[in-house]
Amino acid sequence: MKKTFKKQEYPKRGLYPEYLAKEIDRYLRFYLKRYDDIPGELKNSIRYSIESGGKRLRPVLALATAKSLGFEISHIMPTACAIEFIHTYSLIHDDLPAIDNDDLRRGKPTSHQQFGEAIAILTGDALFAESFNIILKDQVADHDIKLRVLDELITASGASGMVAGQIVDICSTGSIISKERLEYMHLNKTAKLIAAAIRSSAILCRTDPHILEGLTEYGTNIGLAFQITDDILDITSNSELTGKTHGKDILQFKSTYPHLWGLDKSRKIAKEKIEKAIESIKDLDINKKMLTNIAQFILVREA
Amino acid sequence: MKKTFKKQEYPKRGLYPEYLAKEIDRYLRFYLKRYDDIPGELKNSIRYSIESGGKRLRPVLALATAKSLGFEISHIMPTACAIEFIHTYSLIHDDLPAIDNDDLRRGKPTSHQQFGEAIAILTGDALFAESFNIILKDQVADHDIKLRVLDELITASGASGMVAGQIVDICSTGSIISKERLEYMHLNKTAKLIAAAIRSSAILCRTDPHILEGLTEYGTNIGLAFQITDDILDITSNSELTGKTHGKDILQFKSTYPHLWGLDKSRKIAKEKIEKAIESIKDLDINKKMLTNIAQFILVREA
Repeated sequence: MKKTFKKQEYPKRGLYPEYLAKEIDRYLRFYLKRYDDIPGELKNSIRYSIESGGKRLRPVLALATAKSLGFEISHIMPTACAIEFIHTYSLIHDDLPAIDNDDLRRGKPTSHQQFGEAIAILTGDALFAESFNIILKDQVADHDIKLRVLDELITASGASGMVAGQIVDICSTGSIISKERLEYMHLNKTAKLIAAAIRSSAILCRTDPHILEGLTEYGTNIGLAFQITDDILDITSNSELTGKTHGKDILQFKSTYPHLWGLDKSRKIAKEKIEKAIESIKDLDINKKMLTNIAQFILVREA
Repeated sequence: MKKTFKKQEYPKRGLYPEYLAKEIDRYLRFYLKRYDDIPGELKNSIRYSIESGGKRLRPVLALATAKSLGFEISHIMPTACAIEFIHTYSLIHDDLPAIDNDDLRRGKPTSHQQFGEAIAILTGDALFAESFNIILKDQVADHDIKLRVLDELITASGASGMVAGQIVDICSTGSIISKERLEYMHLNKTAKLIAAAIRSSAILCRTDPHILEGLTEYGTNIGLAFQITDDILDITSNSELTGKTHGKDILQFKSTYPHLWGLDKSRKIAKEKIEKAIESIKDLDINKKMLTNIAQFILVREA
């Protein structure tokens, strides 16, 4: 069943800037020190989820965007870390028994498995609030820029973004949905926050509207491709590689691309979206190498 | 058991500015129209929880603060409505089976009873994000002021605020806790958001630091008194009046003031806090009448 699709064309090793993920980890540990005075149960559960690793894709994309625009990564680091807080909050809530009922995340018991549902729910709530606290307290930027960044992330996370996608996911589980509704779900559940990570970084770097538009197209397309490959990996990969329980989409009758189109067609669609992403930044006057590599990584990743 | 404590001294009728609560309701309905294009399941559940009424204490306090400083209520209305979004989000999550497991809220089935746990969790998440969206999109204010308001509300809601209080509540259920830990819990769970509602309004009205300090003291004390009277009402009132299930604190072995001190001493502590609140604004050069009335209302309320 498992295929090593396009591995020749896009060698995986070296495509993903692991050193940026390590920098994110380092800064996340720094921000966690802020929470030494909060109740121990909350401190431990925040630390557990934030320190459990992962690819750090969203903040890495924010850093890569800054680099592509000629900025130091430190310029946007607080916002990058805040985005990982938002992503971690969303994972904790999605994993809850009432939602996806996942036991395993990043190779460890999910938050509710480790600390119980009540603390998991509240830890997600805390991380969401604290993400904005980091931007408010630590991101150096003019006030108008900071407000734009907050707007980007709040809009991408809210009722017309991530939550909308998650609601459609839940409500369409067990039924066949249209191609349009599936794309709406992926766009909102996954692509908007990924695009917002890139956009926030570009806004902090005061990029011009034309480049911002190209980067948005790039972010939306890699976001959609990422969700498709995620659904493919749920079938073809295994827990040792991804740190998640596998085959759950099928067991839960989730609406996914492989479910609607089969594996080969889904891979083809993901590839088209990655090509579209790369195409959309091709003519921009920025350093495209790292963003292009990350786009290619998304297609060939095994975890 | 039930006493009509201090009813003579502070006649309830007329103390609470019901017309401000009605204005909040009117604006909340206006903001809800924004969500016509989101998935129907989310739109309905947001509408259900926001339209289910309640005293609207926090936004009413924000409006009363603006009035006390000589401003029109329209000046701060978006922020007042945003605060009700935050409060409603916190109620939905608190009511969840994993947390307080409440079936009744504002006289109607709780969100998870009506729509299921998954939608309830996500509706809370959406309301929290959308609260900040309202401030970002609709609150007219200079950028620095808007950022200060966001900071107030996010800090009051986050890991060093509301969530911290809720975590202590959960973790101390079933055990006797110290007076200090109980006050920490009430301060964080309830008083900080109430104080932040007042502070946000005062910041939008560009009040001077001395008045802000007095109002903060006022807000913190009425917030603490509000939680004590809430715990008293859980014992002495009934569902018809409050729209909540009663006697639950005792059944769940919750740590409360009545549990620690008994009813009479708890009433005395609440009264002292209300007196302290009124005292703390006594010498301020503001119109104190409505804020004083609301403080007195908190003590004599029956719901």
